[in-house]
Amino acid sequence: MGMTMTQKILAAHAGLESVKAGQLIEVNLDLVLGNDITTPVAVKEFNKIGVNKVFDKEKIAIVPDHFTPNKDIKAAEQVKMIREFAQDKGIVNFFEIGEMGIEHVIIPEKGLAVAGDVVIGADSHTCTYGALGAFSTGIGSTDMAAGMATGKCWFKVPSAIKFVLKNKPSKWVSGKDVILHIIGKIGVDGALYKSMEFVGEGLKYLSMDERLTMANMAIEAGAKNGIFPVDDKTVAYLKEHSTREYKVYEADEDAEYDEVIEIDLSSLRPTVAFPHLPENTKTIDEVGEVKIDQVVIGSCTNGRIEDLRVAAEILKGKKVAKYVRAIVIPGSQKIYLQAMEEGLVKTFIEAGAIFSTPTCGPCLGGHMGILAKKERCVSTTNRNFVGRMGHTQSEVYLASPAVAAASAITGKITNPEDVA
Amino acid sequence: MGMTMTQKILAAHAGLESVKAGQLIEVNLDLVLGNDITTPVAVKEFNKIGVNKVFDKEKIAIVPDHFTPNKDIKAAEQVKMIREFAQDKGIVNFFEIGEMGIEHVIIPEKGLAVAGDVVIGADSHTCTYGALGAFSTGIGSTDMAAGMATGKCWFKVPSAIKFVLKNKPSKWVSGKDVILHIIGKIGVDGALYKSMEFVGEGLKYLSMDERLTMANMAIEAGAKNGIFPVDDKTVAYLKEHSTREYKVYEADEDAEYDEVIEIDLSSLRPTVAFPHLPENTKTIDEVGEVKIDQVVIGSCTNGRIEDLRVAAEILKGKKVAKYVRAIVIPGSQKIYLQAMEEGLVKTFIEAGAIFSTPTCGPCLGGHMGILAKKERCVSTTNRNFVGRMGHTQSEVYLASPAVAAASAITGKITNPEDVA
Repeated sequence: MGMTMTQKILAAHAGLESVKAGQLIEVNLDLVLGNDITTPVAVKEFNKIGVNKVFDKEKIAIVPDHFTPNKDIKAAEQVKMIREFAQDKGIVNFFEIGEMGIEHVIIPEKGLAVAGDVVIGADSHTCTYGALGAFSTGIGSTDMAAGMATGKCWFKVPSAIKFVLKNKPSKWVSGKDVILHIIGKIGVDGALYKSMEFVGEGLKYLSMDERLTMANMAIEAGAKNGIFPVDDKTVAYLKEHSTREYKVYEADEDAEYDEVIEIDLSSLRPTVAFPHLPENTKTIDEVGEVKIDQVVIGSCTNGRIEDLRVAAEILKGKKVAKYVRAIVIPGSQKIYLQAMEEGLVKTFIEAGAIFSTPTCGPCLGGHMGILAKKERCVSTTNRNFVGRMGHTQSEVYLASPAVAAASAITGKITNPEDVA
Repeated sequence: MGMTMTQKILAAHAGLESVKAGQLIEVNLDLVLGNDITTPVAVKEFNKIGVNKVFDKEKIAIVPDHFTPNKDIKAAEQVKMIREFAQDKGIVNFFEIGEMGIEHVIIPEKGLAVAGDVVIGADSHTCTYGALGAFSTGIGSTDMAAGMATGKCWFKVPSAIKFVLKNKPSKWVSGKDVILHIIGKIGVDGALYKSMEFVGEGLKYLSMDERLTMANMAIEAGAKNGIFPVDDKTVAYLKEHSTREYKVYEADEDAEYDEVIEIDLSSLRPTVAFPHLPENTKTIDEVGEVKIDQVVIGSCTNGRIEDLRVAAEILKGKKVAKYVRAIVIPGSQKIYLQAMEEGLVKTFIEAGAIFSTPTCGPCLGGHMGILAKKERCVSTTNRNFVGRMGHTQSEVYLASPAVAAASAITGKITNPEDVA
């Protein structure tokens, strides 16, 4: 029996010829990641282990991005604690605000994760780097602590679902719509502890930014990881962003999958996940009249340059509706600069949107755009659980940057075709 | 006995031939201002008064700028409440994030205050508009409520101190250094309930942005207001920013002053106010070695285009020191755009600073850069009281944008001459 792409990577990192689903293995790590919420807990655990140094000063990344720029005294104390830890241990990749951005945006951008890697991160959306052909998954702060100390992590080898993507999506259908459609189809536990392996000729229509969006949301279907094969686009991306050697793993032809699901990309429509679960999807044609108070365009899911380009294309020369707040948040300082140089920031500000410094901010109800009771937000983020972005009686509608931008103009959930 | 400039304005708005210091008068208002902290309280008081409508829909401005973009659920609820009030009463000048900026930056910028006006605002730094030749002062939320209902406010006519400014300041000495020097000289209650009237040939060396900074900090010497005569620069500013008619008032030649203080601008040095009072000033030459963790450039005091230009001039081609956070916050969306068009934002980001959407944010310990225990910040803001920017054991050093930018590069309080 052959192995899936994920199983191939795990076997290689465990020093084994082969592995099979359900097997417990210990794996060597290429990167251990944490943020300002999870790293403080990991540091306390690390200190209990009783080792003095981390396994590799270059293979740990600490990114204070959730409550930064420091939201309050507690946030400031958390960041101070992990900054001191990074200084003390000589951790190279500690990113102060100003050098940084959102963890899952900057790790690929700075070339800290490449194809063939095994990456763990104390953040559920660590699965993002599957877009690069890496095995990448979210773990808890205790595993982060152990990972920092030993450079290893235990895993139960996952089985997989294969998603075969076919045909070309239409103009306003993006990777976000594809992954929302899939989650709507299989449910928020539809891929529980499994790999989501995306394959098929339809992949060639998905840019790297779109693949990062899709892998990012694998966890929203309960998956252990999402992963894409390495093609020309991946190689071009890796060469542009990293000097590290990457390794290409391919699923065996006789690999076993729990399920094979075909997705005809040409049949998809812009898709919106209604409160309070990412699986509550409707196509834009089924949405009806939903008035909104706020739009958020950004996050580790959709804060990349293509996302901002699409939003700016729609907002160009238009105005944000009266009494609607439109908040645009680039995923990194690099994207900020690029968006500025391309004139996108000017478009946003002239439209009456705000352009923030990079932060996770409102996505998790942190800061920078929190909702009051009964307020509604169309957001390009990844979760719309009860109270996720503020009051427990507020509502979050997950959508693509195109739908979010169109909705900002009209003040209700809107089909980009109707305003573009 | 003649009247001061302030007394002239107050007399005219009270319908009186003349007034004298200490007299209680009722004055007609040209603008009533509130923000997201003070307006909710004022709205509750307004509702108790029992009138249905505001005195003038065009003469009230509500600017949610302190805890916006909404920091948390409480902030979101506050803004929602005042937004609904503005909608209900038809208040024209309610500024959503995206249309706005910091209240004391946008009111002059949008021409809502002009020379000769009487302006009250439920925010202590409402004294800023004295730079335009207006009488402008901070009041409590109850007075704001009464002002919104009646268009009137009671005042005790203030006496005045005359500051005669002479000679030309040197390159790195700005309006911020002048006002810090003055507060250091007379103390934080040195002008208690008095007008600070700035006159003299030295005025011609102070730009409108510098005068706005100086008037802004009159309250830090305890003053009722700070005020500048209307000269060519004022007229040019008013014509550029407002279509409203303005009126020029001049102090009588025989006006009585409690004190006349001469300031030789050419003798001043870049000045820093040490914790925990704005009067604790030292010249840059007396500062010694003070290591810092954060720099804030912005606020109603120093978030204008000239402030950003000076900071960018110093940061150009330099890097923010490792482990130092440099936070630059434009005072308005207009300034944001202008700073971008002039290449200043690029300079900040390339230097490793962040460029935020407009907000009062860290100045008052709100959000967007709060300090942990024992952290130190050089800030262009207006107050450095205990705990003002975060933990009660943190420290704020008030300075000009030039000193703040220079300090960001070295990680300690630094003379701009040493890095420029």
